[in-house]
Amino acid sequence: MRIAIAQFNAHIGNFSGNLEKMLKMTAEAKAQKADIICFPELATCGYPARDFLEFDDFIRQSDAAIQTLAEAARGIAIVVGSPTRNPQPEGKDLYNSVYFLADGAIQYVQHKTLLPTYDVFDEYRYFQPASEWGIVTYQGKRIALTVCEDIWNVGNENPLYTICPMDEMMAAKPELMLNVSASPFSCDHAPERIHVIRANVERYKVPIFYVNHVGAQTELLFDGGSVVMSPSGEVFDEMPFFEECLRVYELDEVMAGGKQVAQPIEKTMLMHDALVMGVRDYFQKLGLKKAILGLSGGIDSAVTCVLAARALGADNVRVILMPSQYSSDHSVNDARHLAENLGVQYDLVPIEPMYAAFAEALKPHFWGYPANITEENLQARIRGMLLMGFSNKFGPILLNTSNKSEMAVGYGTLYGDMCGGLSVLGDVYKTEVYELANYINKDGEVIPQSSIVKPPSAELRPGQKDSDSLPEYDILDRVLFQYIEKHQGPKEIIAMGFDEALVRRVLRLVNINEFKRHQTAPVLRVSSKAFGMGRRLPIVGKYLS
Amino acid sequence: MRIAIAQFNAHIGNFSGNLEKMLKMTAEAKAQKADIICFPELATCGYPARDFLEFDDFIRQSDAAIQTLAEAARGIAIVVGSPTRNPQPEGKDLYNSVYFLADGAIQYVQHKTLLPTYDVFDEYRYFQPASEWGIVTYQGKRIALTVCEDIWNVGNENPLYTICPMDEMMAAKPELMLNVSASPFSCDHAPERIHVIRANVERYKVPIFYVNHVGAQTELLFDGGSVVMSPSGEVFDEMPFFEECLRVYELDEVMAGGKQVAQPIEKTMLMHDALVMGVRDYFQKLGLKKAILGLSGGIDSAVTCVLAARALGADNVRVILMPSQYSSDHSVNDARHLAENLGVQYDLVPIEPMYAAFAEALKPHFWGYPANITEENLQARIRGMLLMGFSNKFGPILLNTSNKSEMAVGYGTLYGDMCGGLSVLGDVYKTEVYELANYINKDGEVIPQSSIVKPPSAELRPGQKDSDSLPEYDILDRVLFQYIEKHQGPKEIIAMGFDEALVRRVLRLVNINEFKRHQTAPVLRVSSKAFGMGRRLPIVGKYLS
Repeated sequence: MRIAIAQFNAHIGNFSGNLEKMLKMTAEAKAQKADIICFPELATCGYPARDFLEFDDFIRQSDAAIQTLAEAARGIAIVVGSPTRNPQPEGKDLYNSVYFLADGAIQYVQHKTLLPTYDVFDEYRYFQPASEWGIVTYQGKRIALTVCEDIWNVGNENPLYTICPMDEMMAAKPELMLNVSASPFSCDHAPERIHVIRANVERYKVPIFYVNHVGAQTELLFDGGSVVMSPSGEVFDEMPFFEECLRVYELDEVMAGGKQVAQPIEKTMLMHDALVMGVRDYFQKLGLKKAILGLSGGIDSAVTCVLAARALGADNVRVILMPSQYSSDHSVNDARHLAENLGVQYDLVPIEPMYAAFAEALKPHFWGYPANITEENLQARIRGMLLMGFSNKFGPILLNTSNKSEMAVGYGTLYGDMCGGLSVLGDVYKTEVYELANYINKDGEVIPQSSIVKPPSAELRPGQKDSDSLPEYDILDRVLFQYIEKHQGPKEIIAMGFDEALVRRVLRLVNINEFKRHQTAPVLRVSSKAFGMGRRLPIVGKYLS
Repeated sequence: MRIAIAQFNAHIGNFSGNLEKMLKMTAEAKAQKADIICFPELATCGYPARDFLEFDDFIRQSDAAIQTLAEAARGIAIVVGSPTRNPQPEGKDLYNSVYFLADGAIQYVQHKTLLPTYDVFDEYRYFQPASEWGIVTYQGKRIALTVCEDIWNVGNENPLYTICPMDEMMAAKPELMLNVSASPFSCDHAPERIHVIRANVERYKVPIFYVNHVGAQTELLFDGGSVVMSPSGEVFDEMPFFEECLRVYELDEVMAGGKQVAQPIEKTMLMHDALVMGVRDYFQKLGLKKAILGLSGGIDSAVTCVLAARALGADNVRVILMPSQYSSDHSVNDARHLAENLGVQYDLVPIEPMYAAFAEALKPHFWGYPANITEENLQARIRGMLLMGFSNKFGPILLNTSNKSEMAVGYGTLYGDMCGGLSVLGDVYKTEVYELANYINKDGEVIPQSSIVKPPSAELRPGQKDSDSLPEYDILDRVLFQYIEKHQGPKEIIAMGFDEALVRRVLRLVNINEFKRHQTAPVLRVSSKAFGMGRRLPIVGKYLS
């Protein structure tokens, strides 16, 4: 038996596009004499389809896609995830299901049992868990079908769940397992994935074919990394990260094992590649080509610019340099050098005339009040307005350049430097932005060295430095990581040896700035806890604030 | 037996503030010789506490509040909602529980069974459902304790759930039920609430004391409307909407019935009062007093301004009139008249000098390109910048004035008129804004009549009218309502008799403008489906778009 794994980039709600690509991949697999082709979880409609799932029309279109795929399943079986209506009067309206299509018809449907409802996942919002389990027999082979999270509770290791669906299926003595997944990327996810698949192989003594989504769904990035594991626990194959891929495997060879494949998993490289894919796919799925951003001479906009040029091509990236009277010469020069190094179009628009017009209009109202953050925000907002002007006039999408450290503590201007359709670095701490910059420069200077080595500054008043307002980033980022990624409270973080006043100040800043993050662009998610859909906090609370 | 109902306004995470108020209300109830006082669901920590629930420190503080309340429960029993840790190694970490505190100690804890996970609710994200049910006996009375949704599946009427916890409790023959709730307001919610409580009374033949939250938690509004229902199904009392309230009831009198109380539920009045409370409580909980907004002379900013003045007092509202060369004289006059009618401070800041500065700076870059939406957006953004300048300099929070119809179809400028810390009318369709305006003027002109009767216009180019770009609002709003509130697809809406091209265009506009709504202020929720946390859609999808 030959099994094809289709590491597939679905587009949410694009039924015709998804179907066309699935039919093409099925034809290819058939040409390679595959007996079965596997597509990922909810591949017909895309993952996560979110509240589109609540529309009957959306489910009708998913069902229609399954019918078309069933028609195409002749001479090859198709395994594919799609929503299914729950025929019972009670419980949620839908199941999250995997279909086994063969001989022109639906042969079997297995529903998902373990429904992740945490972080970025909302599956219990839509789906009823399975309460029946079976297997499918095809060409004499007994095959267990599982959906993503269903394999993440093997041996009841995962404290969230009280049931393990594959334990139920073992009664029917399956000879192999096909798992259809939609498991989002984070920098530390790949080893966990291998660990869990191996735990299943060791418990059930069957080979596992694990197929994952690839591509970006706005903030959620899928890395692929689909895995074929032999009963020995050896990784027979691990598909490449961040690209669509179709491969066919001979089951006998997988059974025999003797191979041990591993993709490189160096963190900064993964982060870099994930962000490039995230930017590229955001534009591709929107049917757009061109991006614009402001280049300050600092490291955040420099790294964002390089990632954009790599994702879209230098010809499709345009940058605007918008110095004020507080901008240093070296900042403008650094920005220009970067643009020249990359070959992206750049223009200079000094902001002083607009600033003067605002200052003049506001003078009678602000008279007697000293200059403060207001005047700094005006500068940031003039830049945001100029960039949005270019965006509106010529069509490029504005990329936001804020990093995770800034977003965490609210060190940014709403409607100013927080503008943009997509936040590229919003899940990358400042200290990680430096790592990305050095990674980008590993084979020669792309980002001017002075952008990397100079002290960070917003340059909104003379001689300003980030460290005037914030702790040094190496300390700040470690406190933020404990609070955001690790859910540690003040007591626990202080007990790690951080200064108490600093910890309380940082946590307070994070909490009182929730209102700013509420209004920001979607953030490409590369960590286990990103700002956005996976982190839901009240705005008007009074906790650590 | 005398039972006190404390219709309570909790503040999320403000443990000391919530506790102080609960102790004060408990003392008051005791002074009125109450035997039991009931606070709402999760009253110790506030509802919805969202991901704060994932912090151990947050749960420790909830537990500490329960301990303090238990100490205070001497001579009176306290019924109160609070999270409880799940001691089992499997399942979610927490229960959503109701505590019965008496004689200085925790006497009984009942966990919630039915965990709403739809619309604005995420309870399955945090909580494990109850699997055991009991009752508590106090002063010889057998009392059933239920939490909110637990009474919403009586007789398995609600198709979402497969279990009905009160059916289980009936084995112990309870004589009355206390239900602690956190049931958010929407304009049509009050009759549903009475209907459900009555269905429970009819099934179980016991009186029900239903206590609800009141107050605003950013976008979620709680109206109170706590209900005491006699075993006859008569409403013995319904507490006032939108205000904190403590009342004590003699159980024998409730048992006897013979009263039939009803609060008025006229839709526009409820919407008005809910929005006033929403604005007021947002500011009170943030510890702020002052608001600012731009007044255009149009109906949306006029209604927002009246609601703000009623919520905060005219002295605490400041408005800025920012005419351009396209603003009609009557608009400026209407805005000025409204400000004078209300007695709010107003200033005039014409935007032309700033517009000229931007036009000049952009001229070399835009040369050869015709004026388009870019120039209209520049005007809206200059206004946003000016308002944010006042906000930053003097501290008032900017109120957003966009209505639901505009937000739905993206008829607004990101970082322009979409600026603001709180969206007052974002869940109010344009046709409902007119209803609010007429309601406000019911006893005499507050909003100038010409603001109400003139054709809606953004006044961003000469002679512009909303109807140049959009269908008439009475048609648009009906299509939007079917799509947003009723989850109807194109097929169903067209079948109702709406023009097919119009329907497809409107639905497409809603879907492609998700990116704008992603970056807007929290919206005060008054309908059954508001933009924001209760409506979660992909940004990069391709569905009806």
